[in-house]
Amino acid sequence: MATLRRQYVVTRQVYSEDSFAEGHQKVSRVRKTILDHVKEYLSCDSKRAKNAALSLLPIIGWMRSYRLKEWLLGDVVSGISTGLVAIMQGLAFSLLASLPPSYGLYTAFFPVLTYFFLGTSRHISVGSFPVLSLMVGAVVTRLVPENSPPANITDFEGLTPDQQRVLVASSVTFLMGVFQLGLGLLQVGFVVVYLSDTLVSGFTTAAAVHILVSQLKFVLGLEVPGISGPLSIIYTLEKIFVQITSTNICDLLMSIIIMAVVFIVKELNDKYKSRLPVPVPIEVIMVRGFEPATLQLFHTNECVELEIWTNPRTFFSLPQTVIACGVSYGFNFEKRFNVDIVGKMVRGYESPIAPSVEIMKEGAVEAFPIAIVGFAVAFSVAKVYSIKHDYTIDGNQELIAFGVSNIFGASFRCFAASTALSRTAIQESSGGKTQVAGLISAMMAMIVTLALGFLLEPLPRSVLGALVIVNLKGMLMQFREILYLGRRDVPDCVVWVGTCVGSILLGLDLGLAVGLGIELLTVVFRTQFPRCCVLANIPDTDLYRDRKDYQHIFEPEGIKIFRIPSPIFFANIEFFRKKLIDAVGFNPLRVLRKRNKALRKLRKLWKEGNHHMTEKGVTSESDDDPDTNTEELDRPSDITGLPFHVDWNADLPTNIGVPRVDVHSLVLDFSAVSFLDISALKGLKMAIKEFIRIHVDVYVTSCDLNILEKLHNCFFFDDEIVTSMFFPTVHDAVLHVLQKHKNKNRGVSFNQTKM
Amino acid sequence: MATLRRQYVVTRQVYSEDSFAEGHQKVSRVRKTILDHVKEYLSCDSKRAKNAALSLLPIIGWMRSYRLKEWLLGDVVSGISTGLVAIMQGLAFSLLASLPPSYGLYTAFFPVLTYFFLGTSRHISVGSFPVLSLMVGAVVTRLVPENSPPANITDFEGLTPDQQRVLVASSVTFLMGVFQLGLGLLQVGFVVVYLSDTLVSGFTTAAAVHILVSQLKFVLGLEVPGISGPLSIIYTLEKIFVQITSTNICDLLMSIIIMAVVFIVKELNDKYKSRLPVPVPIEVIMVRGFEPATLQLFHTNECVELEIWTNPRTFFSLPQTVIACGVSYGFNFEKRFNVDIVGKMVRGYESPIAPSVEIMKEGAVEAFPIAIVGFAVAFSVAKVYSIKHDYTIDGNQELIAFGVSNIFGASFRCFAASTALSRTAIQESSGGKTQVAGLISAMMAMIVTLALGFLLEPLPRSVLGALVIVNLKGMLMQFREILYLGRRDVPDCVVWVGTCVGSILLGLDLGLAVGLGIELLTVVFRTQFPRCCVLANIPDTDLYRDRKDYQHIFEPEGIKIFRIPSPIFFANIEFFRKKLIDAVGFNPLRVLRKRNKALRKLRKLWKEGNHHMTEKGVTSESDDDPDTNTEELDRPSDITGLPFHVDWNADLPTNIGVPRVDVHSLVLDFSAVSFLDISALKGLKMAIKEFIRIHVDVYVTSCDLNILEKLHNCFFFDDEIVTSMFFPTVHDAVLHVLQKHKNKNRGVSFNQTKM
Repeated sequence: MATLRRQYVVTRQVYSEDSFAEGHQKVSRVRKTILDHVKEYLSCDSKRAKNAALSLLPIIGWMRSYRLKEWLLGDVVSGISTGLVAIMQGLAFSLLASLPPSYGLYTAFFPVLTYFFLGTSRHISVGSFPVLSLMVGAVVTRLVPENSPPANITDFEGLTPDQQRVLVASSVTFLMGVFQLGLGLLQVGFVVVYLSDTLVSGFTTAAAVHILVSQLKFVLGLEVPGISGPLSIIYTLEKIFVQITSTNICDLLMSIIIMAVVFIVKELNDKYKSRLPVPVPIEVIMVRGFEPATLQLFHTNECVELEIWTNPRTFFSLPQTVIACGVSYGFNFEKRFNVDIVGKMVRGYESPIAPSVEIMKEGAVEAFPIAIVGFAVAFSVAKVYSIKHDYTIDGNQELIAFGVSNIFGASFRCFAASTALSRTAIQESSGGKTQVAGLISAMMAMIVTLALGFLLEPLPRSVLGALVIVNLKGMLMQFREILYLGRRDVPDCVVWVGTCVGSILLGLDLGLAVGLGIELLTVVFRTQFPRCCVLANIPDTDLYRDRKDYQHIFEPEGIKIFRIPSPIFFANIEFFRKKLIDAVGFNPLRVLRKRNKALRKLRKLWKEGNHHMTEKGVTSESDDDPDTNTEELDRPSDITGLPFHVDWNADLPTNIGVPRVDVHSLVLDFSAVSFLDISALKGLKMAIKEFIRIHVDVYVTSCDLNILEKLHNCFFFDDEIVTSMFFPTVHDAVLHVLQKHKNKNRGVSFNQTKM
Repeated sequence: MATLRRQYVVTRQVYSEDSFAEGHQKVSRVRKTILDHVKEYLSCDSKRAKNAALSLLPIIGWMRSYRLKEWLLGDVVSGISTGLVAIMQGLAFSLLASLPPSYGLYTAFFPVLTYFFLGTSRHISVGSFPVLSLMVGAVVTRLVPENSPPANITDFEGLTPDQQRVLVASSVTFLMGVFQLGLGLLQVGFVVVYLSDTLVSGFTTAAAVHILVSQLKFVLGLEVPGISGPLSIIYTLEKIFVQITSTNICDLLMSIIIMAVVFIVKELNDKYKSRLPVPVPIEVIMVRGFEPATLQLFHTNECVELEIWTNPRTFFSLPQTVIACGVSYGFNFEKRFNVDIVGKMVRGYESPIAPSVEIMKEGAVEAFPIAIVGFAVAFSVAKVYSIKHDYTIDGNQELIAFGVSNIFGASFRCFAASTALSRTAIQESSGGKTQVAGLISAMMAMIVTLALGFLLEPLPRSVLGALVIVNLKGMLMQFREILYLGRRDVPDCVVWVGTCVGSILLGLDLGLAVGLGIELLTVVFRTQFPRCCVLANIPDTDLYRDRKDYQHIFEPEGIKIFRIPSPIFFANIEFFRKKLIDAVGFNPLRVLRKRNKALRKLRKLWKEGNHHMTEKGVTSESDDDPDTNTEELDRPSDITGLPFHVDWNADLPTNIGVPRVDVHSLVLDFSAVSFLDISALKGLKMAIKEFIRIHVDVYVTSCDLNILEKLHNCFFFDDEIVTSMFFPTVHDAVLHVLQKHKNKNRGVSFNQTKM
């Protein structure tokens, strides 16, 4: 503390913004307009063209510097490990999408091929992602319900229900790819910043609840038709509970065993982990400082998913996969007990199909959020590893890469592809250096599709369901976030709860929209009812603080210093005007009207010649002049033609009452006003004018120079509102006011030459 | 200017927030939490109960002070004039709602009765409003299309199409009333502040386009079925142009004559107006300072509508009504020429009906925006007159009044009621003092319904259509707003265009939602990419400005002063971190990693005993340590166990490259940071830590005390981030830094004891 007891000495002249500008020449800077930016963006020379071409094919960049000896082995090992997980996930997630499991393997293959050429991330594992699969599944069950005829779409003719489902999924995926490609070409990848941490946490928690409910039927071995649309989760639960007595005990037992085993393996992992000499980096990854805006997703669903699905470096996750396979074979004979199994896998690849335009029309509203969520997940995961390995990824190129991959995949009957942090973590931790690892994992999926698919056929669906459910624990644990946020920041908590409840009840697509709306509203809301305060001087300093906060604080007489603690815009300008009136203690418009009314009376009295300023108690006249033109009363007081000066605070003839105004100067502290919109500008102009018209001087201090420039451009200034009312600091303005009112304020204890 | 050349002298100690708090005891204030507010709100004593009861029936208040002699005559005259206009408007606007014209008269009667008891505004004329009528019409034509069977609703059984339409309109109106009543009881009337000036202007312009298109069929005498839903306006226009050749010439001629006559009368009005000795106050009303947030509507559609429909005080609007009636009688014989006329009016009142729950389900999504728009219009008009006549209106009570009025009206087959500024202006300017005038205008409508309806029967619909269209001119003139806004504020212009285009193409309800979304986005957007800048000292002052703006400006060596010019939240925290890295010229995380890597090497060399700090060119080692654990590199440098001090900016052994860091202190100017959210908090914490870990001191200045308090509550501070980094002003922080680095900075020209 001792080091701080030093002197702060400033001696300079009092500046207004005008006099400051006079003394300090501003460098004229030409600011780029939006047009300039667009021009620059559209300008083209050979170098730019070459760079653009190169950036469209990032593979050229990293392939050139590929270190064959050092990297290839890592890539191959990593590719094989990732491939195993990708196959299991592909099967499980295709159930979420209400599709036959073999299409999950397709999704682990085709999109990877194009991403290999187009993607800028070297570590992410492209393929299915549970939340996306579920969102696609919602469209599939809407258009091809299980127990009722499919939607009236001509392209469905002659197709089996499964083929119809695949057509729906691939059409929606195609459209999602088109959206992503479009956004990428328009270079608007930055939109993902609007999906904040909190929003995504609420959204993925809701997704986990949906996933849980959707898997219950597999675990219980029940026949429950997929239901979509708002409140579908309620109806689904109702259907499940109605037939809960017909649960397939076999399925349930298997599921419980699987869940228990996986759970125990996980716990053992955790225990073993703590004894490892090198601390496993998951916690570090989670706690370390990622750039939150783009990495929101990381902190939430994916991290916890990661915690369970995988254990990077030590690669303990494989046991789960192995156990699942083992159990499935062990239970092979259970087929006779009416257990729903994966069943006939499509062997080899089917011919490409064209997407259905009709389906795309039906699913357009759903495809857009799918495109956004898919990209947001992939980008945030990619960003994590790009920071870790210190290379750059390009959001817009990623959009293009995923757009093309989804379009390409959709043509081969894949469903929506993004990435899953679980697979990506395995790919990176097991030594993957580039997308060569991804390519090899795709080859693994291809081998299973082409040759080994029959091995997976006896796998019961309930096992897949159980695997999905047990992995939800972490996502569902996010409910704890409510408490965390509730204690820290109420608006953030509202966003979380709103998004989560909205997404659970209305479905993921509508819920995301609702969440976004709430999130944007909170930004407005945070600035809408700020704590305004009246400032006063801390004696012997140039500092001004809330006068209610300090006991020894000095408020110069006749001066009100009002701090506006937030930007001013349409939603709060009215609020500020009210607070300002509260702070000064009178409504300037009302005072002006009363003065003008009084003036009219005085003029009348004077004209009639029967008035003496000293005479009190003039004859009674009706106080309510029925012809009063209220609009005229709002104009500046017109004192021309009156031979005497009216002092409004002195005593007037008794039947003329005008409120006393004790404030001669109003200082508005604009230091926290970061922007003004047109509504605020109009409202502010009006408010200032009302004060000026009753002869209260208004000063604006600490106004950002950009805002001052904007005021000039928007014709804020006229003959009443002038630029000389702007001052660089509150203290400058107060000193100026004191000087101006020196004569009146004589004897006041505020020493303005030295304080 | 001369008066400003005074001295600004300050001598005080240098304060940090900590030392300031030590020296200046803060008054402990108990701030009310949200819970306290709720408790207070819910607390109940007899006085509060009495007041609440009284505020629910405002009529008790104004009836007590009713001056029978002075006010009654004015109210009666005003009521008769308003009644005439209300009848014409009721007929015309019921066409917008696709209903038989007699129901427009109902709407001019029933809602007024309840508003008389419940409303707080003394001047507004309750009844139909064109935009609302059109929005109700959209639901009506959706559920009861003209050329195809109605929607599958059981309540429609046994009803004629007209009865079905009335049932739809009244059910939607009922639901709208329920929404309004609910909002009022929840005391959330403030939501209308989100409908900004700009938004409403764009919205009403779109409504004018819709109204224009919907009236074309009457003017041209064509049979065009009402179409609803997105793009309906395109389809409607297509249908009109396809059959443009079968235009009914009679209708068209009449319409043109009507329009021409009305137009000329209006122009004459305008001319005459300018010769009046007293300037007509319309312009004054428009220009004068209404509180913009709540009066947005006034500035836009209603004002221009007012300009045309009426001419307050001189009451020139009546000619139009008279002309319309005259023409209608004159053309009575035209009935034979296949002109569509008003036709059989329902004589007397029909029995009340119960709303249909099925229809309410179908129309719920549309009823909500109708409720909001209806209230917003009424409230802003009421506000205008409450300011003019200096009485208070209560937004929530108004919501309750309109809610009850619409529920009551809907039970008697009315459609959505609000107010129209045109009628209200007539009511006020012709001498109306209280809602007694409204009651009398309702009686006029009743008389027409009960007895004189037959007089209106021969009125051709094309005349009504023409009257509606000619009155749209002003609303359509709002397109000029694009230019006005485009020159002043681009985001506001985007809101206008987005709302207008959205409302035209998607329909008014969806368009309003789109507009709201865009509007909220602009608030976020305005703070998302602000102009960050590096500040420097204006020599011989305590002022700091953008260093690029001034030639003679002094930047103390080793200190970067970074100004954050807006609130920090999820959408811009990433942007600020990037800008901060740009400003200081290095990425602290990268520097830390390089330093830690170098440290590891140094430690290894030292352990091997073959390293001397002076020796340059140690033997080559691979720079890429494959086992590098990047997470550990992000931790603070661990120099324990090293016997020497590492000066990172000095020369290190040649194969150890660490970037030089020339900045020893970073000052963040927080004066414009009006709030922080959780994402910003996390990101900020991480950013500050990264700098602290490479030994750059971070200082935060001018931070709002409320934000500082929040940082404490959110556990922002730990062993690395401490409260002593907060300073009241930039100058305090800079002086502190200079003192701290005095020895290093010796000889620098920055005189810290006197400047």
